[in-house]
Amino acid sequence: MERAYRLIISCPDRVGIVAAVSDFIAVHGGWITEAHHYTDPDSQWFFMRYVVRASSLPFGLEGLKSHFTPVAERFRMQWCVYDTGINKRVVLLASKQAHCLSDLLYRWRSGEMAFDIPCVISNHDELRSYVEWHGLDYRHFPVEAADKSIHFAAVEQALAEARPDVIVLARYMQILPEQICAQYPARIINIHHSFLPSFVGARPYHQAADRGVKLIGATCHYVTTELDAGPIIEQDVVRVGHHNTVEDMIRLGKDVEKQVLARGLRFHLEDRVLVHGNKTIVFG
Amino acid sequence: MERAYRLIISCPDRVGIVAAVSDFIAVHGGWITEAHHYTDPDSQWFFMRYVVRASSLPFGLEGLKSHFTPVAERFRMQWCVYDTGINKRVVLLASKQAHCLSDLLYRWRSGEMAFDIPCVISNHDELRSYVEWHGLDYRHFPVEAADKSIHFAAVEQALAEARPDVIVLARYMQILPEQICAQYPARIINIHHSFLPSFVGARPYHQAADRGVKLIGATCHYVTTELDAGPIIEQDVVRVGHHNTVEDMIRLGKDVEKQVLARGLRFHLEDRVLVHGNKTIVFG
Amino acid sequence: MERAYRLIISCPDRVGIVAAVSDFIAVHGGWITEAHHYTDPDSQWFFMRYVVRASSLPFGLEGLKSHFTPVAERFRMQWCVYDTGINKRVVLLASKQAHCLSDLLYRWRSGEMAFDIPCVISNHDELRSYVEWHGLDYRHFPVEAADKSIHFAAVEQALAEARPDVIVLARYMQILPEQICAQYPARIINIHHSFLPSFVGARPYHQAADRGVKLIGATCHYVTTELDAGPIIEQDVVRVGHHNTVEDMIRLGKDVEKQVLARGLRFHLEDRVLVHGNKTIVFG
Amino acid sequence: MERAYRLIISCPDRVGIVAAVSDFIAVHGGWITEAHHYTDPDSQWFFMRYVVRASSLPFGLEGLKSHFTPVAERFRMQWCVYDTGINKRVVLLASKQAHCLSDLLYRWRSGEMAFDIPCVISNHDELRSYVEWHGLDYRHFPVEAADKSIHFAAVEQALAEARPDVIVLARYMQILPEQICAQYPARIINIHHSFLPSFVGARPYHQAADRGVKLIGATCHYVTTELDAGPIIEQDVVRVGHHNTVEDMIRLGKDVEKQVLARGLRFHLEDRVLVHGNKTIVFG
Repeated sequence: MERAYRLIISCPDRVGIVAAVSDFIAVHGGWITEAHHYTDPDSQWFFMRYVVRASSLPFGLEGLKSHFTPVAERFRMQWCVYDTGINKRVVLLASKQAHCLSDLLYRWRSGEMAFDIPCVISNHDELRSYVEWHGLDYRHFPVEAADKSIHFAAVEQALAEARPDVIVLARYMQILPEQICAQYPARIINIHHSFLPSFVGARPYHQAADRGVKLIGATCHYVTTELDAGPIIEQDVVRVGHHNTVEDMIRLGKDVEKQVLARGLRFHLEDRVLVHGNKTIVFG
Repeated sequence: MERAYRLIISCPDRVGIVAAVSDFIAVHGGWITEAHHYTDPDSQWFFMRYVVRASSLPFGLEGLKSHFTPVAERFRMQWCVYDTGINKRVVLLASKQAHCLSDLLYRWRSGEMAFDIPCVISNHDELRSYVEWHGLDYRHFPVEAADKSIHFAAVEQALAEARPDVIVLARYMQILPEQICAQYPARIINIHHSFLPSFVGARPYHQAADRGVKLIGATCHYVTTELDAGPIIEQDVVRVGHHNTVEDMIRLGKDVEKQVLARGLRFHLEDRVLVHGNKTIVFG
Repeated sequence: MERAYRLIISCPDRVGIVAAVSDFIAVHGGWITEAHHYTDPDSQWFFMRYVVRASSLPFGLEGLKSHFTPVAERFRMQWCVYDTGINKRVVLLASKQAHCLSDLLYRWRSGEMAFDIPCVISNHDELRSYVEWHGLDYRHFPVEAADKSIHFAAVEQALAEARPDVIVLARYMQILPEQICAQYPARIINIHHSFLPSFVGARPYHQAADRGVKLIGATCHYVTTELDAGPIIEQDVVRVGHHNTVEDMIRLGKDVEKQVLARGLRFHLEDRVLVHGNKTIVFG
Repeated sequence: MERAYRLIISCPDRVGIVAAVSDFIAVHGGWITEAHHYTDPDSQWFFMRYVVRASSLPFGLEGLKSHFTPVAERFRMQWCVYDTGINKRVVLLASKQAHCLSDLLYRWRSGEMAFDIPCVISNHDELRSYVEWHGLDYRHFPVEAADKSIHFAAVEQALAEARPDVIVLARYMQILPEQICAQYPARIINIHHSFLPSFVGARPYHQAADRGVKLIGATCHYVTTELDAGPIIEQDVVRVGHHNTVEDMIRLGKDVEKQVLARGLRFHLEDRVLVHGNKTIVFG
C-alpha cells in the first residue's frame, strides 16, 4: 500500500468546509484516494476523513500540519493527521483464553494488519510460550483477589512504559480501574461477548441461554468508566437454537468475538472511527 | 403437499420413548416423513414431532388419537395430533401500519402459507379497503384513550366469536390486557421491533439510535402477561450505521419485522414450536 | 424529506475535481447533506454524488445546471442533476407471480419509496384486480408462443407512451428483445432468482438443488443484451439445507428476490448507482 | 463431553426402520442424546444419525457392532458406529498461506475440536517453525514445476503412513492427482475460495472482482476427481462493494474460508455429514 496521510476532522458544520479542505489539498497537488464526510443531523457536527498520497504533496507530515493549521483554525476544527508509514503501537491484554489473542497475532505476523506490539500483558502465565514464539515481550502480572491494586499498578506502569496508541482488551476478563480508563479516552478497545445492550456484565452466554434468544453476538466498543456502556464500534451475531447448550454458545460466540474485535481494531488502526458523544462514526 | 398427521409430544425423558412411538407408527404401517426429537439437558424433558402420511395409516384423526392414547399414558405425555388438511384459524390484529399485515395477506392469498382468517381486527379504519379487497371481514374497534376497556371488551368478544387457533399482533400497537392474554396461552404471537431483550417497551428504534448500535432487529414471541418477555420464537437483525437516521432504522426494521413474523407464524402453523418454560423448542 | 438536488458526476480523475465542485457549491451557499466520491484504481475514472439542499441555493434546477456547466466542461464530466421533488416514472412488468410486484406496490402506496407508476404491464391477466385496486393502469399483452413479436411490439409501444425513467422486470419471465434493451441502457432493472454468476438461465432453483449448494440467492442487475450478464446492483442469499426441497427453495428465494429487488430499485431511484463498464458503483 | 457412540445409517426407505433401530437401543437400555433422520424424496433413500451414551449400554464398541448387525442386515443398511472416545486422525496439507492452518491449529490446541494430527504436509517450508512449536511433525515435500510426480509420490506415501481418517486441504494450492483422490473417497476436505459453482478454478477473487459481484464466499467440499465439483459440505459469504480491491476481497475472503473450513471439518469429525450422490446430508 502506498504511503499516505490520513486527515481526520470534526467541527461545527457550515457552508464551505469541504471546499476549503479540498481546495487546500488541490492547491498543493494532493491526490485524494479516499474521502468520507458526514454531518450529524441532531448536533450539526461535521466529520471528515481524507486519505492523500504522501508522494503527491510537496511537504512531509510536519509540513502538512503547519500548512493546514490556518484552514483548521478558520473552522475551529478538532483534527489530526496520521502517516500510514508509522505503525500504531498496540498493547494487548489477555487472560487465559487465547481465541482473540491468537487471531490478532495471526493477523499481525501475516502482515494482514500493520501495527507494532510493545508487549502483551496478562494476569496469567498460560500464553507466555505462544506469545514469546512470536518474539514478543510477555508481561505476567498475577491478580490477587484480595487486593487487585498491585496488579493494576503494574499494568498502569507497563502501559506508561509501552506508550500505546491503543490498548486492546482481548478477553482480559478484568475490569480496568477508572484511573487507567481516564488516561486513554477512545484508545482502549474491548470485546464484550454479547450483543450489547443485551446481557451487560458477567456470564452473558448464560444470560442468553436463560432468555432463549435465537441469535447471540459480540460487541467491540471503546472503554469508558461505565461498564459495557462505551461507544460501540462494531457488532455481529450468529444464529443459535434450542439444541445449543451454553458451551455451544461460548464456542460459537468465540468466532464472532474474534471477528468483531479484529474488524473494530482494523477500523481504529485505519483511523476510520470518530467518536461523537457516546456513539461512533465509522467511515467503512 | 400430501395430507399428513403431525404428532407433537412432550414428557419426562426415559429410555424407550422413541422406540414406543416409532413402533406404534410402524405396526400400523405409518410412513414417517419428518422426525425431530430433543431432550432438554437441564430439565430432562423430552420433546418430539413426527409427521406421518395420513394415507399410510388405517385410521383417521380420531382413530389415531384413540389408538395412541395407551402409548401416551404409559409415558405420561402431553400430546396433540394435528391434521394438515385442517387449516388453523388465524385472527390478525393491526393498527395503521400495514407492512406486516400486507406481507401476511400476500402469503395467505398466494397460498404460500395455508391458514384461514376469520377476521382482521383494528383500532383504526385505514386498512379496511385493502383487507376487504381480499374478501375478508374487517372489524374496526376504536380506542378511547380515556377508557380502553370498551375497545378491549369488543376485541375479546370478537376473538371469542372467531374461535382462533392463533392470534397475531401484526404491529397492533396496543398492550393486550392480562385477561385476554391468559385465555390464549402460547397462542398469541407478537412481533416486537427490537432485538429483545434489548430495548424493551416503546420506541425501540429511538432507543437503538441513542445507544449507537450497529445492528437492529426484530423478535417474534408468544405474548405472556409480562411485557415483551414471553418465549422467543424467532429473531433477526439488519446492519445499520452512523449515517442511518431513526427514520431509516424504522424503514429497515420493517423489512426485518415482516420476515421474522412470517417465519415465526409459519413455524407455529406447522406445529414446529414447543414451549418449555419461557423458552421455545423450534423443530426447523 | 427536504427537497434537494443530486449531482452525479463521472470523469477522468485528476487533481482538483472535488475542490472545484465543492467550491462551486460553497460559493453559492449550497448546503451539502450527502457526499460520496470514488476513483476506480484500474481505469482512474472518478465518480461523485453530492446531495445539496434545494433551499440553500439561489437558483432552481435549470439555474443550477447552467451555472455548473463551465465546471463540468473544464473536467470533461459526464453529469446529471436530479431534483428529489420530481418522482421518477417506473413501469413495472410482471407475469403471474406476485411476490415482487406486491412488495413494490406496498412500498409505493405506503410512501416508503417515492416514484410514479405510469402503468403495469403483464403477459397475463391474473394480477389485474390487485393492481387496479391501487388505481393503477394495468396493460395485459398476451404472449403467443409461436410468435412473441406481437407481444413485444405492444410492450415497446406501451413503454414509449409511458416515458419511463426506469423499467422494472418484477419476475416478468420473458426475455426482452435486444431492440427494447438497447433503448433503455442502465434503465431496465431485472431480478434474477439466483446468486449470479451461478445458475444463469432457466430454473435456477432446480440447478441449485441439483448442485447441493448450502446458500441460494438473488441478483438485481441492469439488463443488457447478454442474458443475466449485466451490471450487478445488489445481491443477497439465504441458507438452505438437504431437507429443503426445490419448492422450499422457491419459497425461500422469493423472500430474497423481493428484498434484493426493492433495495436495488431504491438505490437506483436515489441516484446511488453509477455504471462503469459492466460493474456498478453503489454509493450506499 | 460424555463418551458416546454415533450410529450412522443409510438404506432404502421403508416402514419400520426407526422402530427397529430405536427398539434395539431401548431394549439394551441405551440413552439417545441426539437423533436425526431424513429420507431423500427423489431416491427414497433413508439416512439416520443416533448418538447414544456409551455408559448406558451393556457392551462396548465391538459388542454394539455385533449385536446391531442383524438389524442392519434386515434393512440392508450401510452403517458405521463411531466411538467419541477415539479421536479421528487428520492430516493437514498447506502451502505458504497460514490463515486456515493457523485457525485449525488454534482449535486443536485449545481443545475446541478434538482430533489427532499425525503430520502436517506442505510444498513449502515457511510454516515449519509455527507447526513445530505445536509439537507436530512437519513434512516438507517441494514441488518441481517440471515434474510434480515426485512431490505427489512423497505425499501419497506420507499419507499412507499417517493412516488418516480425513485429509484437509487447508489452502494447499495443488490439485491432488486422481490416484490419491480415489483412495480417500469422502475423506478429503477442501476449502475453495469462492461461492461455488461460481468462479471454479484459479484466481476466483479476481474473477469475482471482474464480474462485480456484491458478495464473495467460500465453499468447503469433499474432493472428487472432478475439479471443484465434489459434494458441498458448507458455504458462506461476505458482503463486498465497488470500493473493495481484489486485495480486500482476498483478505475478507480469508476470514470466510477459515470459518467455513472449520465448520465443515467439525461436521465431518462429528459424523454429521452423509454423502448421497454428489450432495451431502448435514445433520447440524
